[in-house]
Amino acid sequence: MLIVDSPTDHRSALLDAIDSPRDLRRLSLAQMEALAQELRDTIIATVAETGGHLAPSLGVVELTMALHYVFDTPRDRLVWDVGHQAYAHKLLTGRRDQFATLRQHKGLSGFPKRVESEYDTVEAGHSSTSISYGLGMTAAKAIQNDDAKVIAIIGDGSMTAGMAFEGLNHAGDLGRNLVVILNDNEMSISKNVGALSSFLSRKMTGRTIRRLRDHIEERLLALSSVGENILSVLRKSEESLKGFFTPGMLFEALKFKYIGPIPGHELEDLIATLENVRDHNHGPVLVHVITTKGKGYKPAETHPGDYHGIGPFDVATGAPKKNKTAAVSYTKVFGDTLCRLARQDKRVAAITAAMAGGTGLLPFAGEFPERFFDVGIAEQHAVTFAAGLALEGMRPFFAVYSSFMQRALDQLIHDVCLPNLPVTIALDRSGVVGADGPTHHGVFDLSFLHFIPNLTVMAPKDENELQQMLYTSLQHNGPVVLRYPRGSGEGVALDSSFQNLEIGKGEVLREGKDLLLLPVGNRVYPALAAAARLEEQGVSATVINPRFLKPLDTELIAAWAAQTGRVITIEDNSVLGGFGSGVLHLLNQRGLHVPITLLGYDDAFVEHGPQPTLWRSAGIDADGIVLAATELMRR
Amino acid sequence: MLIVDSPTDHRSALLDAIDSPRDLRRLSLAQMEALAQELRDTIIATVAETGGHLAPSLGVVELTMALHYVFDTPRDRLVWDVGHQAYAHKLLTGRRDQFATLRQHKGLSGFPKRVESEYDTVEAGHSSTSISYGLGMTAAKAIQNDDAKVIAIIGDGSMTAGMAFEGLNHAGDLGRNLVVILNDNEMSISKNVGALSSFLSRKMTGRTIRRLRDHIEERLLALSSVGENILSVLRKSEESLKGFFTPGMLFEALKFKYIGPIPGHELEDLIATLENVRDHNHGPVLVHVITTKGKGYKPAETHPGDYHGIGPFDVATGAPKKNKTAAVSYTKVFGDTLCRLARQDKRVAAITAAMAGGTGLLPFAGEFPERFFDVGIAEQHAVTFAAGLALEGMRPFFAVYSSFMQRALDQLIHDVCLPNLPVTIALDRSGVVGADGPTHHGVFDLSFLHFIPNLTVMAPKDENELQQMLYTSLQHNGPVVLRYPRGSGEGVALDSSFQNLEIGKGEVLREGKDLLLLPVGNRVYPALAAAARLEEQGVSATVINPRFLKPLDTELIAAWAAQTGRVITIEDNSVLGGFGSGVLHLLNQRGLHVPITLLGYDDAFVEHGPQPTLWRSAGIDADGIVLAATELMRR
Repeated sequence: MLIVDSPTDHRSALLDAIDSPRDLRRLSLAQMEALAQELRDTIIATVAETGGHLAPSLGVVELTMALHYVFDTPRDRLVWDVGHQAYAHKLLTGRRDQFATLRQHKGLSGFPKRVESEYDTVEAGHSSTSISYGLGMTAAKAIQNDDAKVIAIIGDGSMTAGMAFEGLNHAGDLGRNLVVILNDNEMSISKNVGALSSFLSRKMTGRTIRRLRDHIEERLLALSSVGENILSVLRKSEESLKGFFTPGMLFEALKFKYIGPIPGHELEDLIATLENVRDHNHGPVLVHVITTKGKGYKPAETHPGDYHGIGPFDVATGAPKKNKTAAVSYTKVFGDTLCRLARQDKRVAAITAAMAGGTGLLPFAGEFPERFFDVGIAEQHAVTFAAGLALEGMRPFFAVYSSFMQRALDQLIHDVCLPNLPVTIALDRSGVVGADGPTHHGVFDLSFLHFIPNLTVMAPKDENELQQMLYTSLQHNGPVVLRYPRGSGEGVALDSSFQNLEIGKGEVLREGKDLLLLPVGNRVYPALAAAARLEEQGVSATVINPRFLKPLDTELIAAWAAQTGRVITIEDNSVLGGFGSGVLHLLNQRGLHVPITLLGYDDAFVEHGPQPTLWRSAGIDADGIVLAATELMRR
Repeated sequence: MLIVDSPTDHRSALLDAIDSPRDLRRLSLAQMEALAQELRDTIIATVAETGGHLAPSLGVVELTMALHYVFDTPRDRLVWDVGHQAYAHKLLTGRRDQFATLRQHKGLSGFPKRVESEYDTVEAGHSSTSISYGLGMTAAKAIQNDDAKVIAIIGDGSMTAGMAFEGLNHAGDLGRNLVVILNDNEMSISKNVGALSSFLSRKMTGRTIRRLRDHIEERLLALSSVGENILSVLRKSEESLKGFFTPGMLFEALKFKYIGPIPGHELEDLIATLENVRDHNHGPVLVHVITTKGKGYKPAETHPGDYHGIGPFDVATGAPKKNKTAAVSYTKVFGDTLCRLARQDKRVAAITAAMAGGTGLLPFAGEFPERFFDVGIAEQHAVTFAAGLALEGMRPFFAVYSSFMQRALDQLIHDVCLPNLPVTIALDRSGVVGADGPTHHGVFDLSFLHFIPNLTVMAPKDENELQQMLYTSLQHNGPVVLRYPRGSGEGVALDSSFQNLEIGKGEVLREGKDLLLLPVGNRVYPALAAAARLEEQGVSATVINPRFLKPLDTELIAAWAAQTGRVITIEDNSVLGGFGSGVLHLLNQRGLHVPITLLGYDDAFVEHGPQPTLWRSAGIDADGIVLAATELMRR
C-alpha cells in the first residue's frame, strides 16, 4: 500500500500546477484523489529530509483539500489549531516551491505564519486557541456585515484544554456562524485522556451506559405511562443506548449544530458535507470528522505518536536517519532519575499534560501507574492538581515544556507558591528549542518565574547536576522550578549516589582575577570554553555556576564581582527580567557599581533555526562570550 | 421577613456555643434552623461594618451547615472555590470571636487561609480551582489508602472557566471518589453567560429544544420500529423534552454521577442527600444545589450583583455608608471614555470576563450591545477572542483585573504580541487592592509584562491621563497594556478633547539638580508631594512621569540620571522585574553607574489591608519616598 517517491524522482504533475486553491477548484474528483497522493508523497519525502510534524499533516490531506475546495479562501478564513497539521495547506497555497525549506533557518515555518501567506490567518503553535480566534473573527464579521465564513479546525486532543471549552461555551451563547471542524484521530500527541475522550470515541464503558440508563429511567418514569413505554424499549439493549448517546449531544448541549461523525479520507463525502455546512447560516456548527493520524505512510499509521514530530528519517524503513549522539538527553535523565527517586520515596508522583513521551515520563508511567497522571492538554489543571497532591503529603513533579508553562502562571503563583507547597515543576525545553520556533522557545521562563515569592529556581549545568537537583528538590519543603534545555546533555558521567545541594549556593568552577563569568544552565560549558580561550589571550576569568537563579548566592556573586570588577551574565533566556537582571539588582543593592554585560535574547521574538545557530546569533556561545569579554576588558 | 440584629444587640445564643463543627453535630434540626438565622444575622451585621462578600456567603449558610454536619471535617476536606462564600464556614470553625476583624489589616482574611484554621484546606481567591485542588487531594488519599472524603464546592459561574472543565474531564477519567457540589445561583458575579449557563438553568430556548429533538429523531429512526414508538411519544410535547434533557446529562457524559437539582436552603433535604453522597464510593459525584444569592437579606436577594462584594452599609436600608469621595474612580473614567471612543470609532469593541460592573463596562454594554462581549470567567479565551476581533479590523479593549490577567499570559504572548495585533488590555486593580489581599493584589503585572516583545505598557498618573492613554492606544497599531489602580482618581479635571501621546515619551513634571524621582502611575502624585517636602529640606528633586513602562523613554531618563547622579524609582509593584529593574538595565546599558534605589514590594506576598497602609509599609508613599531620598543623599 505504501507508495512513496524519492525526492529526486518526484511525480507531482498535478501539484506542480496548483499555485493557489483556485487551481484546486478546477480539478475533477479523480484528479483531486491523485493530488492527495502527490501531497502525501511530497510531505513524506520532504519531512524525511527536514524533520517535522509528519503524522498530523498526513491525517488531514483530504480535509485540507476539501476545505479549500468548498470555501472561498482566503476570503473565508481557515484557522488551524496548533498548526502542525498545515503542510498540505502550505503546499496548496503557493508555497510549493519553498516547501523543501520547511523548518530550516530562514525557511518556511513549521506552523502557519501570516507573513508567509494571506491564507495563513493566525500565528499558531500552542493548542486550543482556534475556537477563540475564530469566534473573534466571526464576531467582527457580524459587526461589519461581512458574510465571509470562519472555519476553526481543531483536534480531539486540543478539545481537552479548558480554553477550547471556554470558546465553545461563548460560541454557543453568541450564536454566530462559526464552523468548528473537530479533527478526531482519537489521540492528541500521546494517547488521549479524559472523560471527554471516551465520550467522543464512543467507547463507553458498561458502567457509564448503565448510569445513563438509570438516569433516563428516572426521568421517563416521571412522565408516567408514556414514559413506561419508552422505558421498555430502552431496556432492550445497551447497544441502542450507545447509538442514542452520541458525541453530538454534548455539543448540542452547548448550542452547536452537530454534524457527523463523517469519514475524513473520502473526498466526495467531505466536499458534500462541507458544502451543506457552508450554506448553513443559523449559528455555530460542529463537524465531527474521523481521520487517521499518519494516513498513507505505514510506519506513521502504526506508531502515530513516534511520527507526531520527528527528525529526518529513511522513507523506506521509517527509521531515524541521524546517528544518536553518545550523550543522553536531559529528558531521559529526568525520566530515569524520577523513577529512581520514586523507588526510594513513595510520595513521589509524576504529572504530564499529554506529553508523557516528550517529557520522558513513559518509564515512570510503566513502573508506577498509580502515581502517574496524564491530565490531557490542561496545564492550568495540572499545576493545581499537583498542589492538591502536595497538600495531602505527596511530592508531585509536573514535567512540562517551558513555553507551555506560560499557560499556568496564575496557578503557580496562587495555588502553589502562596501556600508554599512542595511541588516541583520540571521545566523541559527551556531556552531555544530549534525548528519549532517562537511559540515553542522557552526564552521567557526566568522572566516570568523569578518574581514569584517562595519559589526556588534551579538550572543544572549538565545532566549529572540535573539528577542532583531533582534529588535536592525532593528534600526541599517548598515549590521548585527546575529548568533544563532541549536535547543532549554534556556527556558527563552520572554519579551513582544522590547529593543534596545547598539551596541558594553556587559553585566556583574556575578562578581568575580579571572578570567574572556567570553562565546559567547550558551556558556553563560554553563559558568554561570561553574562559580557556580568554586565558590564551591573557585574560583570567572566574567562572561561577550559580545553580540557583532564585535565591541567588548573593554573597558569592557579590564577593567575586567586587574582586574582579567586571561581570558578564549569560543565559538562554530574554535579557529582560531574567538572571542577569537579578544580578544587576543584587549588585545595585550592594552598592557595587561594576561594569556588567548581560548576554541573552534581545527584546524580540526568536525565529526558528538550529539551536547552535540561534545561540550564535544571540552571542551566547563561546565565541560570543569571548567577544563580550574582550569588549568589556577594553572599558 | 427581614430579621436583623444590630451588632450591639446580638441574639446568638446557639452560635456562641459552637466552637467547632463537633458542636454543630449535636444540634436538633430546629436548633440548626435557628442557628442558620443567627449565622445570617452575624454575617449581615459584620459585613455592614467591614464590607465584604455578602451575597455569596448568605447563599450558602444552610449548605455550609449541612456539609459540616454530614462530613467528618477537618478529616474530610472542604475545598471552597474562590472562597468568598466562606463566612459561615469561618463562623462555624472556631473563628466566631475574631469575625469582627474580617478583612481588616492583620485580621481574618476574606478568603479561606490555611494558617487561620485546620478547616481551611487551601488558599483561594481566584475562581475555578477547587475541582483541580480537590481531585489532587482525592488522588493522594487513594494512593495512601485513606478513605477520607474530599468535597469541592463550586459556583455555576466558576463552571464557565476552562480550568473547571479540565478538572471535570480528568476527574471523570480518574474515577476517584471526589464530591463536587455545584452551587447554582444562576449567576456568577454578574449575570451568567455562556451556553452552559442556559443549559444549567433549564431555560432552553425553543430552538435548542427543536434541535435536540431533530437530533434524537434521527437517532431513533435508525432503531426502526421501536424507534418510531418512542418518537411518537417524544413528539407530543416540548415540555417532556425539557424534562428529559437535564443538566445531569452533561455531567454524566463526563462520567460523574449526577444528583439533583436539590433546593439549597432546606436543611433536612440537604443533610439527607449529603449523607447518601457520603456513603457513595463508586467514583465522582456531582450534587447540583440550587441556592439564592443573598438569601435572607432582602436588598441582597433583590440586587445580588450589587451585594456580591460591598463596602460598609446601613443594615436597615442596604444603602452604602461611606460618603462617595469627590474624585471619580479610574474604573468609571475608563468606562465613560471607552463609550466616547466607541461613538467616534465603529471599530471599538469591549470585552469582559464576567466583570462588566467591576470593570466599568455597563454603560458600554447598554449603549453598544453589538460590540460588547461578556465571555464568562474565561480570561484565556477573552484574550484570543480579542485577537480574532483585531485580525478582522476591530479595535478590542479587554478590561480585566491585574491579578486575573495572570491567567492569560500565554495568550497575550503568542496570540496577541507575536502577531503584533492592536488589542488593548485595560488592566484595572493594578497595585495593591486592599481588603481582598494577596490573591487580588495586582503587584506582579509589570514583572510579567515588561519582557514581552512588541508590547507597549502605559500607566497614567491620574484619571485625565488615563483617558488620553486610552485614546493613544486606539491610535497605536499594536498591543497595549494600560495599567491603572483600584479606587478614586486624583480629582483632576478631564480634558474635553483627546490628545495622542507620543509612544515612549515621558514628561518632566519638576526639575531639580540633586536627584531624579521616577514614579509609576499612582505613585506620581506622592512623588511630587515628596519632592515638595524635600525642597524644604534643601534637596532639589526632578520628577519624571515615565508614562510608558515599555518602551522606556531611555534618552530622557538617562539624561536626567546623568545630570542628577541619583535615582529613585517608585512603583506599586514587586521590585523584582518591574519598572525599576528596567531602569537599572537601561542605565547599565548606558554605562551610567549612578546610585539607584528601587522602591516597591519586596519578594513576599502582600497581605490584606487598606491601600494607604500597604503603601506606607512598603515605603512607597510620600513619607517613604522622602526617607529613601534622604538616605540616598547621604551616600
